[in-house]
Amino acid sequence: MGNTDSAVPTQNRAICAVVLAGGQGKRMKSDLPKPMFEVLDTPMLDWVLDACSQSGISDVCVVTGFNHGVIEAHLDGRCETVLQSERRGTGHAVMMTRKWLSRFPESDVLILNGDAPFIDCETILGALWQHRHKGNAVTVITASIDNPDGYGRILRSENGISGIIEDRDASPEQRKITEINSGAYWFDTKQLLYALDRIKSNNSQGEYYLTDSVFILLSAGFRADAYISANSNVVLGANDRKGLLLLNNTARFDIINRMMDEGVEFICTDGVTIGKNVCVGAGTKILQGVILKGKTEIGENCVVGPNCIIENCKIGSGVVLNSVQAYDSEVERGARIGPFVQLRPGSRIGAGVKIGNFVEIKNSTIGEDTSVSHLTYVGDSDVGCGVNFGCGVATANYDGENKYRTTIGNDAFIGCNTNLIAPVRIGNAAYTAAGSTITKDVPDGALAIERGEARVIHDYGTKRLKARIVKRTGKQ
Amino acid sequence: MGNTDSAVPTQNRAICAVVLAGGQGKRMKSDLPKPMFEVLDTPMLDWVLDACSQSGISDVCVVTGFNHGVIEAHLDGRCETVLQSERRGTGHAVMMTRKWLSRFPESDVLILNGDAPFIDCETILGALWQHRHKGNAVTVITASIDNPDGYGRILRSENGISGIIEDRDASPEQRKITEINSGAYWFDTKQLLYALDRIKSNNSQGEYYLTDSVFILLSAGFRADAYISANSNVVLGANDRKGLLLLNNTARFDIINRMMDEGVEFICTDGVTIGKNVCVGAGTKILQGVILKGKTEIGENCVVGPNCIIENCKIGSGVVLNSVQAYDSEVERGARIGPFVQLRPGSRIGAGVKIGNFVEIKNSTIGEDTSVSHLTYVGDSDVGCGVNFGCGVATANYDGENKYRTTIGNDAFIGCNTNLIAPVRIGNAAYTAAGSTITKDVPDGALAIERGEARVIHDYGTKRLKARIVKRTGKQ
Amino acid sequence: MGNTDSAVPTQNRAICAVVLAGGQGKRMKSDLPKPMFEVLDTPMLDWVLDACSQSGISDVCVVTGFNHGVIEAHLDGRCETVLQSERRGTGHAVMMTRKWLSRFPESDVLILNGDAPFIDCETILGALWQHRHKGNAVTVITASIDNPDGYGRILRSENGISGIIEDRDASPEQRKITEINSGAYWFDTKQLLYALDRIKSNNSQGEYYLTDSVFILLSAGFRADAYISANSNVVLGANDRKGLLLLNNTARFDIINRMMDEGVEFICTDGVTIGKNVCVGAGTKILQGVILKGKTEIGENCVVGPNCIIENCKIGSGVVLNSVQAYDSEVERGARIGPFVQLRPGSRIGAGVKIGNFVEIKNSTIGEDTSVSHLTYVGDSDVGCGVNFGCGVATANYDGENKYRTTIGNDAFIGCNTNLIAPVRIGNAAYTAAGSTITKDVPDGALAIERGEARVIHDYGTKRLKARIVKRTGKQ
Repeated sequence: MGNTDSAVPTQNRAICAVVLAGGQGKRMKSDLPKPMFEVLDTPMLDWVLDACSQSGISDVCVVTGFNHGVIEAHLDGRCETVLQSERRGTGHAVMMTRKWLSRFPESDVLILNGDAPFIDCETILGALWQHRHKGNAVTVITASIDNPDGYGRILRSENGISGIIEDRDASPEQRKITEINSGAYWFDTKQLLYALDRIKSNNSQGEYYLTDSVFILLSAGFRADAYISANSNVVLGANDRKGLLLLNNTARFDIINRMMDEGVEFICTDGVTIGKNVCVGAGTKILQGVILKGKTEIGENCVVGPNCIIENCKIGSGVVLNSVQAYDSEVERGARIGPFVQLRPGSRIGAGVKIGNFVEIKNSTIGEDTSVSHLTYVGDSDVGCGVNFGCGVATANYDGENKYRTTIGNDAFIGCNTNLIAPVRIGNAAYTAAGSTITKDVPDGALAIERGEARVIHDYGTKRLKARIVKRTGKQ
Repeated sequence: MGNTDSAVPTQNRAICAVVLAGGQGKRMKSDLPKPMFEVLDTPMLDWVLDACSQSGISDVCVVTGFNHGVIEAHLDGRCETVLQSERRGTGHAVMMTRKWLSRFPESDVLILNGDAPFIDCETILGALWQHRHKGNAVTVITASIDNPDGYGRILRSENGISGIIEDRDASPEQRKITEINSGAYWFDTKQLLYALDRIKSNNSQGEYYLTDSVFILLSAGFRADAYISANSNVVLGANDRKGLLLLNNTARFDIINRMMDEGVEFICTDGVTIGKNVCVGAGTKILQGVILKGKTEIGENCVVGPNCIIENCKIGSGVVLNSVQAYDSEVERGARIGPFVQLRPGSRIGAGVKIGNFVEIKNSTIGEDTSVSHLTYVGDSDVGCGVNFGCGVATANYDGENKYRTTIGNDAFIGCNTNLIAPVRIGNAAYTAAGSTITKDVPDGALAIERGEARVIHDYGTKRLKARIVKRTGKQ
Repeated sequence: MGNTDSAVPTQNRAICAVVLAGGQGKRMKSDLPKPMFEVLDTPMLDWVLDACSQSGISDVCVVTGFNHGVIEAHLDGRCETVLQSERRGTGHAVMMTRKWLSRFPESDVLILNGDAPFIDCETILGALWQHRHKGNAVTVITASIDNPDGYGRILRSENGISGIIEDRDASPEQRKITEINSGAYWFDTKQLLYALDRIKSNNSQGEYYLTDSVFILLSAGFRADAYISANSNVVLGANDRKGLLLLNNTARFDIINRMMDEGVEFICTDGVTIGKNVCVGAGTKILQGVILKGKTEIGENCVVGPNCIIENCKIGSGVVLNSVQAYDSEVERGARIGPFVQLRPGSRIGAGVKIGNFVEIKNSTIGEDTSVSHLTYVGDSDVGCGVNFGCGVATANYDGENKYRTTIGNDAFIGCNTNLIAPVRIGNAAYTAAGSTITKDVPDGALAIERGEARVIHDYGTKRLKARIVKRTGKQ
């Protein structure tokens, strides 16, 4: 799961990858292809493709099957796909890529499962190094786990491995083996093609198993070996919603633990989910119920939470976010925001800004040290520095047909319940009086006021109170 | 805990139930009778009564004791009650129902504990089937659990059971028995009455124990047997707040696991509590901090959360609810609501409606595709389709004495900070200008505007800014 | 962790304490001294100092080291500090206090670690009692734990203890000892000074170890013994963020369990963190996501949550708080507040008050039975009883330079979107009309209304609708 910049082995030889993504996931009770189910808001397929890309593998072919249109639409040309129209086993799935593989005759090819999201760059490159160093035709990526029930076991020989035995075929002695097949492999592409020509479907299921290629290559005198991943999560996949929840929890705590190692503070991790592409600076405190998503960067010594959603945002250092939802926005150092605030896409909050309760900012720039304290909507606006918003200010940016911008100069003072009817400009150091609807530009330093006739009607309330008391007490 | 429609055994014989609800729960530190403590917001007594009703048992007698008025008020005539004025054991409690039981001479009677909430219909009917099939006088409902310490153990014989031995009286060999008494029984009513006449209180506590009835019936030559429930939670009860929390967690994860089997997605279950009468469609995502209560139905492919409370609501498919509290309301397909929204009772949100941040809807109908984006209160209103609400709109539905309705036609456009003084009607395609207080009906297609005199006072702000700077910097 | 009022032993002899607070905590990735890291929002050092103060120890000397200015600033003169400018071991740290100790020649001194927060008053006083009762020169505070790996083991003799053996020096047999050194000690001050003069640094690290004092005193014929704390958490400390999270979780569940014993109800403890100085009455329900901090008192039979932050508040009985953040405020019995409400410092909410969604109260008094239902800001105000606020009311308490108060009499009725421009007084039973900006006092029983000219422009909306439809459909 870690990032690494370590280069691929320097041997001057191509690498490519095939990702098997044809599965259905019937027990999920959904039409989504299995690799499209999400772990921490990212489809499992994308976890796998990210690991390829981090490993420097740019030539990737995805084998689709069940509801393939969903995957094709999701990939949107990011990598090639081939369709396995009948599902006849993993070997059969790889056979679909024969033509694609023939474009890389002098290469090694990585075979990955699109629904085993935790394969990582260290494992991929570590296995490749061994694969090449030992001259293997095939290198099985394996893990050693406490409870290997159900998995294929690795049979070690004096020189590499002598095979993989499925759980159901294993002897009692073999069942004790804890090194298991993750289903990921490095092959010499030429030898993979050789093996694919020889895999048979003469088994009870009538399927072509990719594991058979190991025996075929061993029989042909090639070398097969296994690479034990340090990360035993590489074997994890999910067949139902419970399994998927388990993957989410595994990913959650991997990321939270990594962040703690980097100096991030957690008081209570309940309800905290942090996506894999999120960065958080040392000394930042993450409170309960915080969801960090997408490509989000958070600076040092912030306090985030409780109950925030921060997605695709860049947050400076020393920022306080309390019960804030922020999307595709930027917040500069020292801003204090919340509670109960939404920053909608395209917002840029300057340093030292204070945004208080029940405020929405949308597609607007808020200058440094400006204060938007309560019950205000700032939309499609360019706000200067040191501005003070009273309570209940609304920018009327939409007239039912078009959206217009509002501009507010530095040090302006916007009175309570002011309506700013865009397009409009409030000048530097200008004032608007409480309750005014501003439809025309206000010059620098001026006060704009819109006010009706003020009257007092005596005894109105006194009479009404009598009626209210009658109502309350039921007595005249 | 599951629902079942399986019919009661077809033997043409009555069934009835006695529920023991006299306990106190001293260690709860509360005056509430123990069966009134809640698991997932439902009193334990109601869990038990629901299981009776799902099993087709309509004649139920509740034996009350400690603070019986609370239970009587809660039941409100739903079923009969008898008072056990002194607490002298479970046998004594059942004796109180003698007169009531005598109304069902040819019947089988189920004895349940009002503070063991997880008894279920499958167990009740499975036990009844065995009870009748084997011709038992008494059938003890049992469970097999890993740690039976403290429970009465079941002594099996060649033909049924030979007795129940209390933990404190058990021999070391008997203490190893893992089949335990849940405290629930089926009796042939006639034979129960026979046994009740013979239970003695000549024990150290001076109490009448219902378990003695098993020995009495065996001695009289009747058959006694035990039915092992597949659901070992049937034995669970709570004596203190920690035990109650454990019951809540047991129920929580039972329900969450059942929902996952049905295709509901959970990314993080922290803070998620779902009541037992809630239904959620496949493909719906439930995020952290979601509370679903009462009789709530949620459609397919929704996203609910984080941090919602949805109580007694019907939510259509494809709805998005983000940080929403909704009570006794209905939301149609494809509506997007949140964050920070409250739907108060009597709201009906049409398909495709968008409700944004800091909006409250109360006792109102919102037509399809209407948009209420921010900082608005819609109360006691009938709103048409395709309406656009600006920011800060308030319906003034209450004049201190009475509440009135507001009507808004299709395609109307309500300007920012408009006050709608009910009773009032805004016509189809009508506009209200920002900042207007609307006290009279607005015809279809018209614009209503209430605006005061607008003035600009030059240099007002400039002078004020000087004072502010002096204040800020402390310098003239 | 518990509070206790039990008196210190009655022997007429002084007690004092030295707290070692020089550590760095490198793996925290922060410049904060280790004892300043927080457990449940309280620095570990303060946990330790609180335990001293609860034990009746008022003379305390804190030994600082790494980044000592931070600790000095935090203590702000609360107790004396001495600087250990080089870090040369625990013995060396205590040597720094020689001069300070010499002020208490006839006393017992407690040595504590500033980063072991769970030392408690019962342990301190229990150990002191034994220390004096048995005439010990030194009493080591110990705990018995399941996995003692890494800790120094206590070597018991026929008369007290014969030493402490470090984990790395222990024989296989000694490694099985489960009684370990917590690092806290009672010393006869005179004998501690004697020992400090004799500790040597002739070990591989070149450090002075305080544990050596035990051997020195035993060799000199003094008595050493160990006191096993009933609370094995006294040994816990944290070296990294993961350890700190563990301390937080330990403290969280200790407090939650204590509260359950006191009759507080929890349905789901996820996201619940309660500070150590918080009191909650029996029968109160705490829901998920509740953060109680500082010196907060909550009455009986309240419902708090979900998702509240309550800090330094006094909450009466029967109060309902749903998604509320409240700071330095007071809420009287029976008030119902939320969802989505903030009470800022200095607010006092009367009995029976109802505060609804999207309301902020700041530095204001709200009289009994007043209702502030929606989208309102009440700041710097004195509000009477039985007042009704419409939706969208704003007190304009700030003119950019100064803050002013608003006064509202009993039974007043404030219309929707009213602006109250402070300083202003609304009389008893007075009304303000919706949409009015009130700049002058309103007499008792009067209605104040500020309203502009109202006009209707026919067909305005009809024409606009055509444009909107063209826009929407793209057709003329």
